[in-house]
Amino acid sequence: MTELHVYEPNADDLAYTFGGRPAVRTVRPGDALRVYTEDCFGGKVTGFGTLPTQVCQFPFLNPVTGPFHVEGAEPGDTLALHFARIEPARDWAVSSTFPHFGALTSTSHTATLQPPLEERVWVYELSRENGTVRYRARNSDFVVDLPMEPMHGTVGVAPGAFEARMTITPDAHGGNMDTPELRAGVTVYFGVNVAGALFALGDGHARQGHGEVSGVAVEAAMHTTLVVELLKGVPTPWPRLESDEFLMSTGSARPLEDAYRISQHDLVTWVAGLTGLDELDAYQLVSQAGEAPVGNVCDTNYTMVAKVAKRYLRGAEAYEGVHRRLREMAAAL
Amino acid sequence: MTELHVYEPNADDLAYTFGGRPAVRTVRPGDALRVYTEDCFGGKVTGFGTLPTQVCQFPFLNPVTGPFHVEGAEPGDTLALHFARIEPARDWAVSSTFPHFGALTSTSHTATLQPPLEERVWVYELSRENGTVRYRARNSDFVVDLPMEPMHGTVGVAPGAFEARMTITPDAHGGNMDTPELRAGVTVYFGVNVAGALFALGDGHARQGHGEVSGVAVEAAMHTTLVVELLKGVPTPWPRLESDEFLMSTGSARPLEDAYRISQHDLVTWVAGLTGLDELDAYQLVSQAGEAPVGNVCDTNYTMVAKVAKRYLRGAEAYEGVHRRLREMAAAL
Amino acid sequence: MTELHVYEPNADDLAYTFGGRPAVRTVRPGDALRVYTEDCFGGKVTGFGTLPTQVCQFPFLNPVTGPFHVEGAEPGDTLALHFARIEPARDWAVSSTFPHFGALTSTSHTATLQPPLEERVWVYELSRENGTVRYRARNSDFVVDLPMEPMHGTVGVAPGAFEARMTITPDAHGGNMDTPELRAGVTVYFGVNVAGALFALGDGHARQGHGEVSGVAVEAAMHTTLVVELLKGVPTPWPRLESDEFLMSTGSARPLEDAYRISQHDLVTWVAGLTGLDELDAYQLVSQAGEAPVGNVCDTNYTMVAKVAKRYLRGAEAYEGVHRRLREMAAAL
Amino acid sequence: MTELHVYEPNADDLAYTFGGRPAVRTVRPGDALRVYTEDCFGGKVTGFGTLPTQVCQFPFLNPVTGPFHVEGAEPGDTLALHFARIEPARDWAVSSTFPHFGALTSTSHTATLQPPLEERVWVYELSRENGTVRYRARNSDFVVDLPMEPMHGTVGVAPGAFEARMTITPDAHGGNMDTPELRAGVTVYFGVNVAGALFALGDGHARQGHGEVSGVAVEAAMHTTLVVELLKGVPTPWPRLESDEFLMSTGSARPLEDAYRISQHDLVTWVAGLTGLDELDAYQLVSQAGEAPVGNVCDTNYTMVAKVAKRYLRGAEAYEGVHRRLREMAAAL
Repeated sequence: MTELHVYEPNADDLAYTFGGRPAVRTVRPGDALRVYTEDCFGGKVTGFGTLPTQVCQFPFLNPVTGPFHVEGAEPGDTLALHFARIEPARDWAVSSTFPHFGALTSTSHTATLQPPLEERVWVYELSRENGTVRYRARNSDFVVDLPMEPMHGTVGVAPGAFEARMTITPDAHGGNMDTPELRAGVTVYFGVNVAGALFALGDGHARQGHGEVSGVAVEAAMHTTLVVELLKGVPTPWPRLESDEFLMSTGSARPLEDAYRISQHDLVTWVAGLTGLDELDAYQLVSQAGEAPVGNVCDTNYTMVAKVAKRYLRGAEAYEGVHRRLREMAAAL
Repeated sequence: MTELHVYEPNADDLAYTFGGRPAVRTVRPGDALRVYTEDCFGGKVTGFGTLPTQVCQFPFLNPVTGPFHVEGAEPGDTLALHFARIEPARDWAVSSTFPHFGALTSTSHTATLQPPLEERVWVYELSRENGTVRYRARNSDFVVDLPMEPMHGTVGVAPGAFEARMTITPDAHGGNMDTPELRAGVTVYFGVNVAGALFALGDGHARQGHGEVSGVAVEAAMHTTLVVELLKGVPTPWPRLESDEFLMSTGSARPLEDAYRISQHDLVTWVAGLTGLDELDAYQLVSQAGEAPVGNVCDTNYTMVAKVAKRYLRGAEAYEGVHRRLREMAAAL
Repeated sequence: MTELHVYEPNADDLAYTFGGRPAVRTVRPGDALRVYTEDCFGGKVTGFGTLPTQVCQFPFLNPVTGPFHVEGAEPGDTLALHFARIEPARDWAVSSTFPHFGALTSTSHTATLQPPLEERVWVYELSRENGTVRYRARNSDFVVDLPMEPMHGTVGVAPGAFEARMTITPDAHGGNMDTPELRAGVTVYFGVNVAGALFALGDGHARQGHGEVSGVAVEAAMHTTLVVELLKGVPTPWPRLESDEFLMSTGSARPLEDAYRISQHDLVTWVAGLTGLDELDAYQLVSQAGEAPVGNVCDTNYTMVAKVAKRYLRGAEAYEGVHRRLREMAAAL
Repeated sequence: MTELHVYEPNADDLAYTFGGRPAVRTVRPGDALRVYTEDCFGGKVTGFGTLPTQVCQFPFLNPVTGPFHVEGAEPGDTLALHFARIEPARDWAVSSTFPHFGALTSTSHTATLQPPLEERVWVYELSRENGTVRYRARNSDFVVDLPMEPMHGTVGVAPGAFEARMTITPDAHGGNMDTPELRAGVTVYFGVNVAGALFALGDGHARQGHGEVSGVAVEAAMHTTLVVELLKGVPTPWPRLESDEFLMSTGSARPLEDAYRISQHDLVTWVAGLTGLDELDAYQLVSQAGEAPVGNVCDTNYTMVAKVAKRYLRGAEAYEGVHRRLREMAAAL
């Protein structure tokens, strides 16, 4: 029997790093978890007048719910998190520009002498019935509905090497990867770096474009249900995702081509391992069959995803079929 | 009445630069053109024993067919090329690794002291009936069919500033963008830099993964039919594409985030112009609705595409509907 | 009177992160400190047969001595560390290649399918009398003496935002900047992020080329003496250095141009503040008078230094002349 | 006997590309050449009121004098140009900001939605007697003299592969490398790509900071004398420089770390060839003894120089001592 833990944090319970925090709960492999996650602004940006820089204070941005201790998890294992449901908790969501943050502005790192772009807030109406988020222009009467496609921008485990990392940074431990691929129905795999794995999640998006070009998606608090599993003695070098149809590897780095290289390198070697292809043959197959959805091109590291359809792998099964089993457990919840 | 020009080059007629070459033919706006294009190896790699470095000689790589002079085209105009058909000319295609070329190897620019990867050729069987290309591993008996999705890696016009550029380089004049978005049914727009525009095309791919990670796609000679149009006095800063459903901008640069920035910047300002949204409102819309398919992460510049569905633009029509008109002309061919 | 603290850590006292560790000692502003620092291999690489990957274990690399708590230091202050003496503790030092680390090899992030370069150790003889380090080739009889120029690769404070970072990473808190500018006679300034500042240092180099191209310098344990000072209520955004003749800013990021941008941006705005030049006039002055010594092009972030001679600033004095005062205190030690 | 050619171009004789232009003169190996070069603005920016974007027109920027045909030069040879004298032709020089150009601004490639920085001109007084250039702030009364250190930003040969490249682009053929190392007393080596080599030069700077951070140096017309030599059958992959004390390699690429990699890779393999060190031993030596002066971080490619003192190479002589011979010929002019 799957045990379902329900956890709703108070504002004081939210975490702003991966690593460096004690667990808020312990769960067992096979357990399910239903959590509330706040939006990236801690719920403080609620309308046009609540500019992020006025209502939020660094480093209290991009809070995550957790961390959760997974019984028996040790370095060298792989944690599997299957996302059963990701549902917006409110009927609205927000986006904004943020000074010197985003892809089409200079930033603290791509530093220029130019002043920042105007800070502006957009409010989206979410319609569960229609499955839409409604964009409204601020300076004209343009309105359009976009599909609601809920996802989590930030999921990860405690990093290794005694590190604690801001939740806005994606890296080998996961974190703020900001990929729309991280949606319901998907299993995410993380290499475990510390005892208990200490995973956490947050930064829900009602939807997001590729690369999150302005730096801010349609930010939404979420009710999310996931199933937790542990693969003992199985390493995972970078976060991986699996859906019913695809295997995916991620890479998070700068410049963006290194994020691409990491993700493609992991996918090529993973495919080689699963299929018995030698590395060059796998390189060739991925080169023709592979996809490369952009995650984010705005965070402290950029994220790319490397993706290949399972149907091209002739029955190869990743992680001994755990995705399929978790999918079934999720359906039974 | 659309005039259809048919042009099949001899080996000596092939070009290896954009710019610096006289036109092979003159066409008029509204004309159609049916051309043969050789594969990136000039057709010389035909089997496992014909290694690219042995049968090809730099700079005689990636030949293009053309250039074609478009009557009346002048700097400041936009050339529109609508791809009606792209059909493999042979029932086989090839791919390979190429020493110190590709994303998962050091290169002449990402220079390391490591020796190159093994140079290896793969031969694909193309099936027009099944619409497939057949991958066969070289070092095991793994075989899988992938969908045939013909495209041109290389299309462009003569660059400005008196330049002539190798066909393997993508830049503001087009060139070797290597994006799978450049398929039949699509209109490509180029800013004209010199009298006559002098466009050329080549580097057909029976299919290609995202980023062309190994540096070489499923390389195929093509029979391609396109319709040529000219928009007088309309500038286009970077190559753009339009399909029935999407508007697309491209950017080609290094590092990869600059290719992303260029393409997203062009799409945001283009969308602003088409919809009347102010720039920040357009930035926000593209940020949530936009896509960012990777072109290449292996060539001398990397290419990204920025893409937005027309249905989110509330009836805005690009270039006064020329894509629709060319689509109809193509259907009538 | 300057109090001189002497601190020599045991192996168990060494730290491998900035942040996340309790202080080993408390010092007061105005105090001097004499410490021993181990080399980047923890002293375990002692000859040709002791390959780093065999005798060292990740993450126990690049140990630092500290952290030291500075009484009264609070976020928003600036910590000044003046390096009075940096003296190799042994008459030998080592260097090596390290698999998939360095600028002329693929790495975990610039990931390729190529095998690593050979792992090889070089041993240098240090001559205090001659002020030289002796390079001996491994595969020929080539021998040459290079000037000894002792420096610390790694100095920093605890980062903000509740982070703990591996000592091999340079960032806004300092860390593994690996710049030869960090030598005796120089004052380093860090913005304080946590109560007590919690500074630490290590990774002594008997000398280093620009960029540390192989990833490993002439690694040496050091006896180092420094004077500690605190500037209350004075922020410092990125580590800065001051010698008798130069003001310097640093930036650590990827790609390398962002490290350059950060450091030049900080120098331009700093110079503007010190001289009363407006930002564009300061930009112009630095553009013609500035230098840009490369720090490292091998670590997890790359480091650039931006540097301008004080004599071009017409008497402007940084941090109210604290460098001059610390220089005098150091001379009196 | 050295023949001295004197060549002073009219405005119409200036070139704006490397490649794609007929020679203006033919010279023989061993000949000397005295030329006039215009500044990067074609001499049109003469005071505060002559803003570059108003008086200059793209692509008529950065003119070069030449190209010169070198008798007997063929692909596979090396052209050696020894700079005997570089002397400002006027007693003033100019600098400026230029919209969306430079390192501390967004650009056409690092594209953002921010408006450009203010376009502003600075005028420098040059004093041959004092050897100084006088900086005057525009918005305050700050004045300071900087050392005059004349150099050429742009020198190169026609590129290979039938290319013609804008003079503002540095690449393997040379071009706009913008390194202060290219000063009088230095020999520059280029691989020859086309018959006659077709070298040209321009873009004199009375001085320049490292990286040319604002994108514009102290721009000056020059009278320059150089000696031309040809090394038959000796290839040179990237431009190299030699002074009495140093050997230097260059790399021009983006991102900046690739420029670093190219230049260090060339220096390491060059040193290995000259000294008999194996590649790893040479890598180690350069890693400790090498320097890495930044060229430009503002042009279409960035440029890094890799540099090692000849005294560390135990008598190894590059290109059979041609620098020494040309130095003597220059002294006799």
